[in-house]
This record gives sequence, C-alpha cells and structure tokens, in this order.
Amino acid sequence: MFKKNANEGSARSCTLYTSHGEVETPLFMPVATQGSVKALDPDDLKNAGSEIVLGNAYHLYLRPGAEIIAELGGLHNFMGWNGPLLTDSGGFQGFSLKELRNITETGIFFKSHIDGSSHTLTPESVIEIQELIGADIIMPLDVCLPSTASEYEVIDAISRTSRWMNRCLTVKKKDHQLLFGIIQGGLFLEHRKSSVASLIDLGLPGYAIGGLSVGESKAAMYEIVYQTAAILPEDKPRYLMGVGSPEDLVECVAGGIDMFDCVMPTRVARNGALYKRTGRENITVTKYKSSDRSFDENCDCYTCARFSAGYINHLFKSREYLAYRLASIHNLHFIHTLMYEMQIAIKSGFFSQYAETFRSEYNLPDIKRK
Amino acid sequence: MFKKNANEGSARSCTLYTSHGEVETPLFMPVATQGSVKALDPDDLKNAGSEIVLGNAYHLYLRPGAEIIAELGGLHNFMGWNGPLLTDSGGFQGFSLKELRNITETGIFFKSHIDGSSHTLTPESVIEIQELIGADIIMPLDVCLPSTASEYEVIDAISRTSRWMNRCLTVKKKDHQLLFGIIQGGLFLEHRKSSVASLIDLGLPGYAIGGLSVGESKAAMYEIVYQTAAILPEDKPRYLMGVGSPEDLVECVAGGIDMFDCVMPTRVARNGALYKRTGRENITVTKYKSSDRSFDENCDCYTCARFSAGYINHLFKSREYLAYRLASIHNLHFIHTLMYEMQIAIKSGFFSQYAETFRSEYNLPDIKRK
Repeated sequence: MFKKNANEGSARSCTLYTSHGEVETPLFMPVATQGSVKALDPDDLKNAGSEIVLGNAYHLYLRPGAEIIAELGGLHNFMGWNGPLLTDSGGFQGFSLKELRNITETGIFFKSHIDGSSHTLTPESVIEIQELIGADIIMPLDVCLPSTASEYEVIDAISRTSRWMNRCLTVKKKDHQLLFGIIQGGLFLEHRKSSVASLIDLGLPGYAIGGLSVGESKAAMYEIVYQTAAILPEDKPRYLMGVGSPEDLVECVAGGIDMFDCVMPTRVARNGALYKRTGRENITVTKYKSSDRSFDENCDCYTCARFSAGYINHLFKSREYLAYRLASIHNLHFIHTLMYEMQIAIKSGFFSQYAETFRSEYNLPDIKRK
Repeated sequence: MFKKNANEGSARSCTLYTSHGEVETPLFMPVATQGSVKALDPDDLKNAGSEIVLGNAYHLYLRPGAEIIAELGGLHNFMGWNGPLLTDSGGFQGFSLKELRNITETGIFFKSHIDGSSHTLTPESVIEIQELIGADIIMPLDVCLPSTASEYEVIDAISRTSRWMNRCLTVKKKDHQLLFGIIQGGLFLEHRKSSVASLIDLGLPGYAIGGLSVGESKAAMYEIVYQTAAILPEDKPRYLMGVGSPEDLVECVAGGIDMFDCVMPTRVARNGALYKRTGRENITVTKYKSSDRSFDENCDCYTCARFSAGYINHLFKSREYLAYRLASIHNLHFIHTLMYEMQIAIKSGFFSQYAETFRSEYNLPDIKRK
C-alpha cells in the first residue's frame, strides 16, 4: 500500500497505492470542499497536474448529503474524478466554525453554517458518512485546537482524539478505504510523541499531522513538523494537514512529509495572487495592465500558454469568472510542478541543492524566514 | 463577402466571409461584453459550437481601453479567439444606461458606470475605437429607443442614426472591417422603411435591425422583424440585435434573419435555467437533486456528457463557480445546435416542418405565443 522509493536526508519519495490508482509523493492535494475545486473542472485538475483531490465529509454531509452522493455513485462519480480521493472528517470544522459547535466526549455538535439546523458528528457517524461518500483515504474525527491552546487542553485533545480513533476503527467496514490516524499535540513535542504512541499500535495505513498552520509562526511549525515526522514509522505515508504555501511545501518535504492539502493556492489565485519562482505577485498591479507576455514565460500551464498577463489583469479588473479559473489553473500547476521537481530531486540525490536554490530565489517579502 | 446558399420561404442559409474566416448562417453570436463570454474560455466556445463572438466597444473602450487592446495585438489576440469577431458600438448602452448619458447631435455623453468619469462617444470616435479593437464586423453609433418611444422620437432617432452613419463612413479607414448599418424605427413599419431607405444607397456590407426586444410583445417584434427583413437586400446579411431566446431564434430565422446575438442564453444559465427541446427548466429544482442522469440525455455537450444533473444541482446550491460555466456551456451548445439544425433544414427544404416541430415541442409556459 505504500513504498519508499528514495530518500535524501529526511526527504522521501514514495508510492502510495489506493483503490483508484497509485500516486507518487511528495504530493499536493487541491481542496474540493464541496465536491468541486473552486472554479475548476476535473480536466483542469488533470491538466494542472493534480493526481489526488481532497473533499470534506462535513460539508458534503450537510449538502447534498452522504446518501445522495452514494445514490449518485459515490464522490468519484459525483464530481467526475476517477483518480484517488481523500475526505477530511470535519474535525477541522470543529475548530474553524467555533461559534457554531460544541464538543463533548460523544462528538461534535454543529449548527449548520447553511441553515442553522443541528447536527452531531460522532467518530462512528463520520466513518459511516465517509463510507457512503466513498473516498479512497478517509480521516477520523479529531479534536483540532488553535495554536494558543493551553497544555491542559492539548493533553485532553490528544486523549480524546485517541479514544475517537478507536471508536472509528470499531465501526469501519470497508477494507479498500484507508483510514489514517491524526496526530495532535500542538507545539509540544512531548505531547506529539504521546499522540504518536497512542496510535502506533493500531496498524494504521497512514498518519496525518493535524492542528498546525493555525496561527503559530512558520519557524515553530517547521520545528514541530520535523520532530514529529522523525518519530513516525518509515513505511507509512505522512500527511501534513492544511499546509501549504510553496515555501512551506519545500521546508516540510525537507522534514519528511509526503502529502499536503491546502486551499491557499486556489484561494489566493481568486484574489489575483499568482505564484512564480521569484515569489508571489499580484496580477492586478499596473505593470501587468499592458503586458503582452505570459505572466510567467517559463510556465507551460494553459493560462500562461494561451493568455497574456494583460488579459488576465483585465479579467480580474472586470471581475470576469474566467479570471478565477485561469489564475487557479496557474497556481495549481505551479504547486504540482514544484512537487514533481522535488520527487525527481529526491530520487536523483540533489534535493538539498534544489531546496537551497528555491529558498534563494523565492521571495518572501512579508513573512519571517526560518 | 456574402453568399446565399439556399432559402425556404423567407428563411435563408448563407455564408458570410470575414477576415478571420467564413461562417454559415443562420448563426448566433455569444456575447463577450468585456472580452470574455462570462465563465467560458475560447476552447469552451469552440466546443459548444460558437463560430463568431460579439464584444462591446463601449465597455472595452472604458476598460482596459482601446489603445491597450491594440498594444496587446487587437481583440482577437487579447481574448485568445482567432475566429470572427463583431463589436457593437455602444449605441445600445446609450439606451440601457439611461441615467448616465445625454445624447446630442454630436454624440453620446456618458458617465462611466465604472468610475463616474465623463466620456463622449461620437460616430467618429466609435469607428476609431473599433479600428483599434480590430473586430471583423463593426457597428456605427446609433440612437436606440425604448418600445414606448413616441412617433416623433422615432423619426428623430432614424434621421440622427442616418446622419451618424454617414459620419462613420467618412472616417472609416480599414477596408477589411465590415461596417454594418443599423435600422431603427421602433414598431412603425413606415419608419423602418424610411430607415432602410436612408441606408440602402451606401453600399453597406450588412444590415442590423436595432431597437427591438426592448419591452414590446413577442408578436409585435416578430411582425416588425418580418416586414423589415422583407425590404432588405437579398444579397446582404441581416442581423437582429439583442435577440434571443430559442423561440425567438426560430421565428426570426423563419422571417429571414441571418445573425443574432444575445446575453440571455448565458445569463439564464448562470441562474440555473437550462434549455431542453421541451422548454427551459431550472436545474435547481428538487427533482434534479438526486438525478444520476444527464440534464438532457440527448445532448452531447461537455456538461451533459460528463456530469449528472444531480451534481450540477449541487454546484448551484453550493454556489460553486463551476456551476456557471457548465450551465453556460450547455445553453450555448443548445442554441448553436438549434442554429446548425436550421441551416441543414433550410438547405434540405424541410425548415417549415422543423420550425413546426420545434413550436409543438418547446414549452413556453409564461410567455404569450405569437
């Protein structure tokens, strides 16, 4: 189900096998929260280099409903994506929708952000929902905390997440779905260790690191990612949830992470922020208004191959829908190219050089460097 | 430049030659007001069957500016569309943006709907703008009136439109651009006739019928379209501006119209209203929520070939951008298929039968039938 092909230091390149095909790591999963990566169709994703896509069980449970997705042939068929899919459980929404939820030992009580109706997600129900939805990789319900959480809250979250994991395993029926474990523990290495310890004997097919990129500094995040990755089994995939930006991807691959997901590449794209090897730039600035060249002349994505920066600038200024799609295609293509190049670099033994070149070229004007 | 291939009664099938290729009529032009058919890219248009696209000189003059478009290689290059293009002049905006404009013999004074800045469009400046923009077919500035206009206003508008036409011709420099004339006259056949008479000796390469579909009944519109088409030269294209719906297209092709443009197919698509041979239906209604079939199983557009009605229903309910694109693709494909079938029917001599079948199948629940 998982095979390491090469490593250079902590960085690894592996193959992950799923019931909808195999994928090479390190990899990035674009986010289709509601069953659609915003503004893109499945062909756009394939053309941009996406190989595995993430959906959100909480959102899909609320709308259209897990039963409807099952009736329509499961999430793959529903969204027209025949490659691997992963669904997150809704644990993160227990953190992010904090005005609308209450967490007890039973599970997470939500008021729907759509219509205010009441719902309970339990460890058992999220498995049932995800079995109906039918993704290849599924996630347990977890307790996700902000980076400001106290040590007491962190300890409590770990032990509850661990108990919930066991409840998930008890009800899980479908062998072809890979149920990963989620490691919590905030920025406390000691508690990350105990979270790993509580999961390690369960024979899980993969480990996610949760509760990061929630307000802590990049340096603090990288530190705990490295230390946590170092104590995870060599022969299982390591998935860092909710990360990241290009710089985070490079640093966390260096630290031994295999899989990532994040809304950022497509979200910033819809605001006109496009990635380049020299850093992120806003296509709406004046210098692009009369540019007859591609935004990135070294890029062979559909957007850069077909349209001038001047046209994309105009589409954003005119609030044309096409702007959001073209920018999202470019940013995903950028991220997937970065991941692909890191795979090659690791297999060829020049990853540290690749990462150093990236760091020296990629401009982070407003963010403290590690 | 224009060749009639066949006719059946008043209905005609012709070939129109432009500097970016030839197109068969009757044809429908999707509207790229700001240089983008909303939510679609040029490949989407080609795949849906579009062969000629309409832009708006007034909108493009305000943003990004005609000079910028010229610098970026003209509108074809700017929007990545290498087929024929037509630009409307902005005369219609002199009607539709009535709070923001004042019309004198000189031209139309506008306050920009974008930033309130003041602009004057004259017959001369709209030619200059359209020569910079570079569409294959261009339109003169005209005075467009509501259907409630008095006979006096109509007479006045015709004579001014005619004087403006002459001013346009005086400054027009680029031979490869076809400058059509615009016939006004409201619902008064007598004044439509005098409008035609004022243009007929100018040797124009085509005639547009303007000032319709602005509030009058369908029956009144069809009547004046038939009568006006009947007095236009046989050997020139006839373009009915701002029309239409599927039923309007069939009736006006029957009356001898060759070319149409309208925002309606894509606008109603973005509201979830999709065309079918049995009428327009809203994909957001409950019966589609759990439908695992295509919206129209007889349709081979990208949307119907790849996605279930249930998924599209979900995309609309979830306000996903992809909904607007998929629905627009379907509706344009529907309209272009309708036009293509009418071409075939006219050439094969069974157009009247085709039109009768369409009328009997296509349901117009809320609209009075002619």
